[in-house]
Parts: sequence; structure tokens; C-alpha cells
Amino acid sequence: MATEISTLGEFGLIKHLTDSIELKNAETRYGVGDDCAILQYGENKDILVTTDMLMEGVHFDLTYIPFKHLGYKAAMVNLSDIYAMGGSPKQITVSIALSKRFGIEDMEDFYAGLRLACEAHGVDIIGGDTTSSRTGLAISITAIGEVEKESAIYRNGAKETDLICVSGDLGAAYMGLQLLEREKDVYYKQIETAKTDIERMAISQPDFSGREYLLERQMKPEARRDILEQLRQAGIRPTAMIDISDGLSSELLHICTQSKCGCRIYEERIPIDYQTAVMCEEMNMNLTTAAMNGGEDYELLFTVPIADHEKIEQMKDVKLIGHITKQDLGCALITRDGSEFELKAQGWNPLT
Amino acid sequence: MATEISTLGEFGLIKHLTDSIELKNAETRYGVGDDCAILQYGENKDILVTTDMLMEGVHFDLTYIPFKHLGYKAAMVNLSDIYAMGGSPKQITVSIALSKRFGIEDMEDFYAGLRLACEAHGVDIIGGDTTSSRTGLAISITAIGEVEKESAIYRNGAKETDLICVSGDLGAAYMGLQLLEREKDVYYKQIETAKTDIERMAISQPDFSGREYLLERQMKPEARRDILEQLRQAGIRPTAMIDISDGLSSELLHICTQSKCGCRIYEERIPIDYQTAVMCEEMNMNLTTAAMNGGEDYELLFTVPIADHEKIEQMKDVKLIGHITKQDLGCALITRDGSEFELKAQGWNPLT
Repeated sequence: MATEISTLGEFGLIKHLTDSIELKNAETRYGVGDDCAILQYGENKDILVTTDMLMEGVHFDLTYIPFKHLGYKAAMVNLSDIYAMGGSPKQITVSIALSKRFGIEDMEDFYAGLRLACEAHGVDIIGGDTTSSRTGLAISITAIGEVEKESAIYRNGAKETDLICVSGDLGAAYMGLQLLEREKDVYYKQIETAKTDIERMAISQPDFSGREYLLERQMKPEARRDILEQLRQAGIRPTAMIDISDGLSSELLHICTQSKCGCRIYEERIPIDYQTAVMCEEMNMNLTTAAMNGGEDYELLFTVPIADHEKIEQMKDVKLIGHITKQDLGCALITRDGSEFELKAQGWNPLT
Repeated sequence: MATEISTLGEFGLIKHLTDSIELKNAETRYGVGDDCAILQYGENKDILVTTDMLMEGVHFDLTYIPFKHLGYKAAMVNLSDIYAMGGSPKQITVSIALSKRFGIEDMEDFYAGLRLACEAHGVDIIGGDTTSSRTGLAISITAIGEVEKESAIYRNGAKETDLICVSGDLGAAYMGLQLLEREKDVYYKQIETAKTDIERMAISQPDFSGREYLLERQMKPEARRDILEQLRQAGIRPTAMIDISDGLSSELLHICTQSKCGCRIYEERIPIDYQTAVMCEEMNMNLTTAAMNGGEDYELLFTVPIADHEKIEQMKDVKLIGHITKQDLGCALITRDGSEFELKAQGWNPLT
């Protein structure tokens, strides 16, 4: 720490953070600096808008997530929502409320992360709000993007016999969080019990070797633009699509409820990384539960007509995990031994 | 109070609050319910985007602002930014983070206020995020609107000899806040010193009669669409425009800095309501300071070519307060006795 933000003031801080931002998209006519940003979208485009709010102590813990990663993740989870409609993100606005305990350097790091994510996806930062908070940090990001007119992919288009597909692997971000929480507890217990300076100096930093993938999935999620590109190249148009933020189970139920259908997915087909499996074993947790309900994967879950079966089989990093059924058959997971379990919405567990 | 929000859950709460929302604008193709909202704007339109974050204890105090007013105000301050570019608001997204101490009824009231503001201005609520907070309430609203292509009114177009105009009157919202703060202190002091139940029952509720206008300005600001309509009818196109959220002084400096010019405004011309003046007198505060630096007026401040002088004089509820000068003359207030005072940026006083 840290240069106090009061040395710059509101307008000074905004200028400091946004001065070097270059607008790159033709759709962005004017960015930071007036009452509004100004956009121009082509007449053959629909405009997509999504927004997310992240609260300290609920969505992130600054004990272990660095500001740069926080900025990166905050942007990425919004870009993921634009891709989940089949669109291309073009702009974000960034609002942040911060308390006295944060310095200018923290905000620089946060913006560095934001900009890294935006540059990787060709997105302009066009505005926002910077204000103070009495307590923790609050972040609100709105992403805007485009999709060919009338071509957005909704959650409600899945049809009976459609195949259910998922990108990447599931449960790793959740196990990364479990790992970080565990090491945080260990660290604080060591601090509590250390009686002398020598004991305090001997407190070991956690060793994350062999678990890097779990941490990366938790702290640096990647929105799957590449999957949309593959689908386009393969000539596949998903009938329904959603990104996995609250867990596979919850997102599948969204698709089935809105599409008025049921589904069967197969436990043995759920893509899981080796590190995720090892971590679950070590922590005595159920692997399938972690993959089904863990959340924060930011992978794409989508359905395609059964006629695309072979094309899907040839796609890299996409796995076919089940199929859509009639609504009255419900939504179920078929386990390795052939039992059926009804899917339950987990989602956000509010205020409890 | 209050039904616990946990009885509904995240998805239940969102459904409860948004189920009865009807989309009214042709530009809104799809609202709440998918990963993104979908908009279609005509090819001859530019799109305006603005966002604001409101934090409990910083921007509002739930001791005296009811949830319905909070929702109304939160929407209105964003609509005001769209009007300040010469545009028409069409959509808002609403993100809210709340802690356990709030109930479903609070959220219903908040949404009732939001909807009242949106209906009055023909705006659709198209999405948002509802999540939990460890401490206070956080609100983030993004407003989207349209303006004729290449016709947005920026802050940077003021020219030497242009006239400086302001709508409505200034300082009332600020004095409303002072009044509320004073009565809150009085109330808490009475509670502290009351020793018996009879004494506690005798604590008087504040009497706001004769000060209703101040409270209304603080708790129920109105974005000035009517002023834009008047300007359009009179055939006046402002050269620069901004809405007054941080105080006249601060906003004038924004216009002058961005337009690379100076200004002279006249103390005697600053529009002030009778109740504002009485309140300042009663509280021993400087009236001009309240009007110049109070903020939260949400009036429009704009400049017009000198040729529009007569047209401006005929406008209702618009006052000519000064003129634009060369940059090297600086920005000054001319007092009643002819002295010049340099304008200072107040703005937000961050984290101090």
C-alpha cells in the first residue's frame, strides 16, 4: 500500500484510470468523458446487454484474489453472457465503489486486469462510475455487444431429441475456491497460534504446485469465444445456449424450463479435469456434485439438433453429455450404475 | 418488516419482481429472462449509455428515504444523463445487492418506485442482477437511450459569447438533505435522553410543513425531459449541455474545461426557490454556496448561441445566468456587489 485515493479526488482518479484508453471498435463513437457514451450499431445487428454485480465477501475475497485478477474476472463473466447469446461483445461500462482502505495502486491493478480481458476480446471500456463505499468493494459491469439481426440464441429453443453439449470441463473453478478457502484457514490458524516472531516468520506459504489449473479456473476464467467460432465454422446453429455460472444443474434446468422440455444427462460423460478429481478425492468431496453444482465454470452449455451429431463429435473441447426429452420425463442425471437422479436447482443461495 | 428474501431464493425473487413488467418500446426486443436483453435501434439513431452506482451510507440513508423513493431517484438520475445528451431514454438495467435485513416488501417498494419513474418516461426495465451483500445496500443502474444520428449534445461545444442557461432552481435538494440530517439528529438525541416509555412516546415526529418542496427535490428528483421538448419546439440547439448532479460550479467547470473556454455567471441571476432561501437563513448557511455547490438538482445546464437570446427569454422555467468567455479569462461568479470569485470544483469528496 498505497497512495490514498483522496490525493487525486473523483475526477482525478477517473482521468488517471481512463486517460490512456483507446477506443478500437467502429461501434464506439464516444467513450469516457461526457454524460453518456455514444454507440453506433449497424442496421443489420441486434444489440445485446447484460450486467453483473460483484460484492466483496460474497463474490470474491481479497485475501486471495489479486486486484488484477479481480478486474479480469469481473469483465470476463460479463463477456461470457454475450457469447452465450451467440454474440460478440463490443463495450463495457465499469462502476466501482471503494472504501478508504484501497489505494490508487489497487485501482490501477484492477484496471490492468479489466483492460487485459477487454483487449483479448476486442472490447472497449466506454464509461462507468467511481464512487466511495462505507464498507467493502462493490463492482458493477455492464457489457454490450452485437449479434446478427434475429439470430440471438435463447435459452428457450431446445427441442426433443436435441443433443446436450458442454465446452471445456466442469467443477475446477469450484475446487479452486475450496482449495483457496482451505489454505486461508490454515494460514490464519498458524497466525493465531504463533507466539513469537520466529514462529510467525516460519509460517509457510501454501504450496499450490500441481493445482495451478484449479486456481486459474477460479481466478482467471476465460469466456469461450473460441467455441462460438468452431460452431460457426462447422455450420452448427445451437437451438439453445447458456453459460455456466451457477453450475451445470441449474443452467440445464433453465434451458429445460424455458424450452418446456426434459433432459437426460450421463454422469460418465461429464467432462472433468484430472486436478479436479484429485482435489475432490483429497477433500473427501463428491466429484459429480462439484461438477454439477460448483459453478463459475463459464463454459457454454448448448443444445443442437441430432443431425449435427457427427459434427459435434469432431469439435475440439466440446463434449456431448446427454439429450433433450419430453417435458413430462423431467430432468435427470443417469449415474454410472444406471440410477436416475432428478436435477435440482442450486443457483445462488441467498442471504442464508 | 418483512418477509425474508430467502423464502423466494434468487430466481424466485427476480421472477416475483419482474414478472409483471411489460415491454413497451419497439427498441426492446427481449427483456428479463435470458443471458442478455436484446435491443434493436433504428439505423438513423445513435445509442446512449450511462451508468450510476448508489451506495447506502454514501448516496442515501434509509433512515429517511423510503424504498419507493429510492427506486424512483435511482432511475431518475440515470434518465437525467440521457436527457443531458439531448437523447430519449428507452431502457434500464437494475442491479441490486442486499443484506439479510431487507425483506421482500422492501424490494417490492423499490421496484414500485423504479417502475413509476420508468413509466413516466416511457422506459423499459430490461434486466439486471439481484444478489446479496454482506453489509449495506448497493444499487447500480445502467440507462440506454437514443438520439438522432450525430446529434448528441456534448459538454465540449460551448463557444465564446454563448449564453449560459439553467432550468428550474438550484440548492433545494441540498437544503432538503440538510433538513433531513438535522431532524434525524434531533430524533436520535430525543431517543437517547428519553428515560421512560412515556418520555419515548412523547418524542415528536418532525414537522416538515412549509418545507415540502425541499424534501421533494431531495427524495423525488425529476429528469427534465420537458426542457428538451421546449428547446426543440423553440428551434434552439444547445451548443453544450450537462445535468447538474455535483453542483452548478462543478458542472460549469466541466463545460468550460472541455469546451476550452471561460465563463462569467451572475449571483443575482441564479434561480433559487423561496423555501431554499428560508432554510438557508434558518440554518445560517450561505445561500449562494448551497446553490453553486449543493448538487443533486438534476436540472439541465446548457449553452446556446447569443442569437437565441430572445427565444430563451420566452422559455418557461429556464433562466439565463451568464455567458461564455475566452479561456484565459477563467471561470468566475460575479457577486451582487460586483466582485469576482473564481469557481472551484467541488464534486465528490472522496474517501475523506
